[in-house]
Amino acid sequence: MELFKETLKAITPPDEKAKKLASERLDSLAKPIGSLGVLEDIVIKMAGITGKPHNSIEKRNIVIMCADNGVVEEGVSAPPQIFTKILTENLTKGLTGVSVLSKLANSDVTIVDIGVNGEIDNPKILNRKVNYGTKNMTKGSSMTREEAIKAIEVGIEVADKLYSEGYSILGTGEMGIGNTTTSGAVLSVFSGLDPKITCGKGAGLTEEQYENKINCVKKAIEVNKPNSEDPIDVISKVGGFDIAGMCGCFLSAAKNRKPIVIDGFISSAAALCAVRLNPLVKEYVFPSHLSKEPGALYMAKEIGVKPMLDLEMRLGEGSGCPLAFQVIDSALYVMDHMATFDEATLDGDTLIDIR
Amino acid sequence: MELFKETLKAITPPDEKAKKLASERLDSLAKPIGSLGVLEDIVIKMAGITGKPHNSIEKRNIVIMCADNGVVEEGVSAPPQIFTKILTENLTKGLTGVSVLSKLANSDVTIVDIGVNGEIDNPKILNRKVNYGTKNMTKGSSMTREEAIKAIEVGIEVADKLYSEGYSILGTGEMGIGNTTTSGAVLSVFSGLDPKITCGKGAGLTEEQYENKINCVKKAIEVNKPNSEDPIDVISKVGGFDIAGMCGCFLSAAKNRKPIVIDGFISSAAALCAVRLNPLVKEYVFPSHLSKEPGALYMAKEIGVKPMLDLEMRLGEGSGCPLAFQVIDSALYVMDHMATFDEATLDGDTLIDIR
Repeated sequence: MELFKETLKAITPPDEKAKKLASERLDSLAKPIGSLGVLEDIVIKMAGITGKPHNSIEKRNIVIMCADNGVVEEGVSAPPQIFTKILTENLTKGLTGVSVLSKLANSDVTIVDIGVNGEIDNPKILNRKVNYGTKNMTKGSSMTREEAIKAIEVGIEVADKLYSEGYSILGTGEMGIGNTTTSGAVLSVFSGLDPKITCGKGAGLTEEQYENKINCVKKAIEVNKPNSEDPIDVISKVGGFDIAGMCGCFLSAAKNRKPIVIDGFISSAAALCAVRLNPLVKEYVFPSHLSKEPGALYMAKEIGVKPMLDLEMRLGEGSGCPLAFQVIDSALYVMDHMATFDEATLDGDTLIDIR
Repeated sequence: MELFKETLKAITPPDEKAKKLASERLDSLAKPIGSLGVLEDIVIKMAGITGKPHNSIEKRNIVIMCADNGVVEEGVSAPPQIFTKILTENLTKGLTGVSVLSKLANSDVTIVDIGVNGEIDNPKILNRKVNYGTKNMTKGSSMTREEAIKAIEVGIEVADKLYSEGYSILGTGEMGIGNTTTSGAVLSVFSGLDPKITCGKGAGLTEEQYENKINCVKKAIEVNKPNSEDPIDVISKVGGFDIAGMCGCFLSAAKNRKPIVIDGFISSAAALCAVRLNPLVKEYVFPSHLSKEPGALYMAKEIGVKPMLDLEMRLGEGSGCPLAFQVIDSALYVMDHMATFDEATLDGDTLIDIR
């Protein structure tokens, strides 16, 4: 509880002076002002985060929060609950989507068991289990308020440690059967949007199963009446341990003045919780891709970000983060390597200023 | 004329067998089927292009077609015409947007003077000038039909040579004051959309100048009556040498069964011309980003592609191509490095199939 409270209190606004310096430098580069669009926004945002106009994100890590959701007993997911455990263990083999994409993008991966329903004994998986999955949210709270805070604190601790070890940017990912259902519920509570809009067909639901999923979210909200003004109430009543853990990672990033990347729908639900806990968190998060999950667009709008990539991905695991790292690399590289019209003297030639 | 005709005739459909092999391999990988979205589409499309299920794009080059447009004398552009020449020469310094982004993405750049209004004597710029800029399209054809074909053939020759030198993928870019006006006209002719929709404010037009730009496009179409069923008629009457040159590059790619990347609005106008000349070209082109130019979305729809990146860029030069190369790299890397459920035996562990 203390760590959570202290983290929330320690979050400060971005460095406006560094943002201004970065912005001025960008405007002096040999290109029409603003013409590199979001690449320029990334450079400026990054300056606000770190307090320096020039930045790099050489050491990177994607934190994957793995947990089970009690609501799966309502049949909201095509694969059975045991798949969470199996897939979490598969992640350690370095052969799944996020592992392979991370290898190319030169990123490490951290796998956290924050609430898998089953014993996992694997040295490659961090055991930070809060409980053996959540309860069925259509019948009552997913977890207690204490568990929600504990799971958030797990996320804070994991991210704090990675940033202290020298990682300059983190990505967020998850593994958990049923977590598009909890994420849809979280989005519906915060946005007021009908579950028909916030829920998708996940990994292959039939029309009938999809109707059931929508009804489960409706019922979970009716039964628990989560208070949208109290994000901990929302997380504990209709969230999951994975969402809470990633929420903690976002809070840690903001506290440590370090950047962090959102992956897809579930990661976005966690970012939304973090932004509702403290609106300043928005200044520390970078979106990656627009997930194929139909609610993803609304999620981005609620957080106040616009995804850089539109790849119709729906794998989860944090698999969008390595792709975003590459776009961020490009943005920061432009800032460091493009010349200003004044500087651009090469072999006696002067680059002519055309602004 | 012969090269143009022969190229058009030599274009064949993608290799469906290789696409099927790639698709089957993707479906066997350790992930839910289709969950990597566009990354999977890229792999399959690439297989269709090269005829091999596994591919890489190690050697890459961005062709930048530089040319002037006579319509600038109507005041459709904020910067004056001389900027085309200045900016074309600036490109050789390796310090502008496309050069810097290409360096990070490990791409070469080829700068072609296909129609700059002025003498350029620079060993780093390929002199393939068709004419000293086009004529004012509001008063008659931009160029003759012969010039249009000649400019297309320049593009074919440049791209043919690069592919023969071992480049595995090309990008397309341009430099030419006034070329959002010609591109808007090309889009209006092919799509039937009002110039109010296909024209944007370019590099900083006032409201009045913007109205004038729209009226110029309307007038160019009224005066020339381009035949939308005859792409050469469209290019010669309301196009530009840059558009024609890039159109040739797209045709060369399709003929050589090699991939090629579209950059932003102007490059898309060229791709649209190429696709209208032969619809099979679509199977050989990859989009990159959605330009901030308001007509870009309609351009993508007309071509039949969906941009991977949404970065609000409007620099031109081919600057979106290096970013697309990185996404394509990721897609091809997944194909080569993710394991199938069957293969994934590592240290005696078996990856458990959960599909």
